[in-house]
Amino acid sequence: MTRQQLFEQIQKKQSFLCVGLDTDLTKIPEHLLEKDDPIYAFNKEIIDGTAPYCVAYKPNLAFYESQGLQGWLAFEKTVAYIRQRYPDQFIIADAKRGDIGNTSEMYARTFFDVAKVDAVTVAPYMGEDSVKPFLGYPDKWVILLILTSNKGSQDFQFSEGENGERLFEKVLRLSQQWAGDDQIMYVVGATQGQMFEDIRKVAPSHFLLVPGIGAQGGSLEEVCRYGMNSQCGLLVNSSRSIIYADNTEQFVEVAREEAKKLQVEMAEMLKLYLK
Amino acid sequence: MTRQQLFEQIQKKQSFLCVGLDTDLTKIPEHLLEKDDPIYAFNKEIIDGTAPYCVAYKPNLAFYESQGLQGWLAFEKTVAYIRQRYPDQFIIADAKRGDIGNTSEMYARTFFDVAKVDAVTVAPYMGEDSVKPFLGYPDKWVILLILTSNKGSQDFQFSEGENGERLFEKVLRLSQQWAGDDQIMYVVGATQGQMFEDIRKVAPSHFLLVPGIGAQGGSLEEVCRYGMNSQCGLLVNSSRSIIYADNTEQFVEVAREEAKKLQVEMAEMLKLYLK
Repeated sequence: MTRQQLFEQIQKKQSFLCVGLDTDLTKIPEHLLEKDDPIYAFNKEIIDGTAPYCVAYKPNLAFYESQGLQGWLAFEKTVAYIRQRYPDQFIIADAKRGDIGNTSEMYARTFFDVAKVDAVTVAPYMGEDSVKPFLGYPDKWVILLILTSNKGSQDFQFSEGENGERLFEKVLRLSQQWAGDDQIMYVVGATQGQMFEDIRKVAPSHFLLVPGIGAQGGSLEEVCRYGMNSQCGLLVNSSRSIIYADNTEQFVEVAREEAKKLQVEMAEMLKLYLK
Repeated sequence: MTRQQLFEQIQKKQSFLCVGLDTDLTKIPEHLLEKDDPIYAFNKEIIDGTAPYCVAYKPNLAFYESQGLQGWLAFEKTVAYIRQRYPDQFIIADAKRGDIGNTSEMYARTFFDVAKVDAVTVAPYMGEDSVKPFLGYPDKWVILLILTSNKGSQDFQFSEGENGERLFEKVLRLSQQWAGDDQIMYVVGATQGQMFEDIRKVAPSHFLLVPGIGAQGGSLEEVCRYGMNSQCGLLVNSSRSIIYADNTEQFVEVAREEAKKLQVEMAEMLKLYLK
């Protein structure tokens, strides 16, 4: 999916919501555990319930891998289901990969050729040649970790180097030499608040994938005030607070309501902050 | 496996070789492609051929994931085979994972509870709470990326912060507060040469996992001169230059010879540098 197509979806749906599919067998409604493939059954219902209110889905690979083969199968089926039923949704494999060149090439093949997602999250620690192999696919995206939403983001991401440049700023600066804003997005946690202002100085036009509202406590209004640009430039992710809002037989209706609530807030934000 | 048990294996075999199982369908001998599970068939033969000369195996997850379900199955079968047939081998899942706490927990479960490996490689960018969930398993190990063997290691890992401390040194220093040398190892590329001296100043007793000899050009002698300690403290990995040394029907014999050659060199190094 291109940048322009993504923006069109955002305008059409008045939403920049990404629903995180962190599907955990210990948290899904009990009645689904009797199904052949409970993870897929859960995802399918969540997707059908939330698709009108979001523009993207983000399966988190850890949750699928932890179920071994069954988990991988559920991941592949989930992506195929979205592709077939909701072809306008942007699909992100939240995998946080990154390795030496020949290995990153394999990961790129896994996600873009085998699983056929639109984007993969990638960790920057190993530098340019660990990221480049993901950039060889037209209309596919790398979403590079910059400032994450967790407490540990303080440990290294803010380390100041020459001229006071912090590590996340260095990653932002260097990575812009690897590809443009039509192939790279950045992960910036909603919990980073005003940092969005600093990031927009260095990367005014890039899309940012923003986890951390909801269960992790970030503010949607703050993210939009500091982070929105003329093509929205934000995909705000919510996982647990939508998909686990309820775990009875009514879970889909409750998840749908939660997604809709966020969509309504997002429409408001677009009115206020779309530049 | 404990640190002591690993050192015992090193002494017994006079080897600190780790064989990297980067198994690629486009590189294995053609006659194996007719097998039901060519990846597993290849691994099984390579393992039987090299086990006397090495103390560890390191399947690289990218190569398995790129084959989808079949690949995961081959990974699980490979680990199970080593466990059953060569229980004294140390098994490393080279996965370079790392995510927010609840997600890293899932990854830890995947590798330690489901796949039952001894160690997982982890990327440090997201800080303490992204690594900690891997440290909750007795006698299981985190192998943290410090200085990698690729060209991109120059991009961020050497970034100088306060008091001239480079990023990799900061990762070394902080991570030692998270767990001891009985639970954390570090990845240091063989191509980093004299950096081993600097690393040993900060982490004298830790085991280092060293990729980058062979195909990537690092020197075993240099690694040992600067990196070996009183319990060896090194696991030196070789992947391509052993497993793809030949791709005819004789591939096992050639791989065995390559592994043996390295073992002989390593015995020499232990004589020279074991302090």
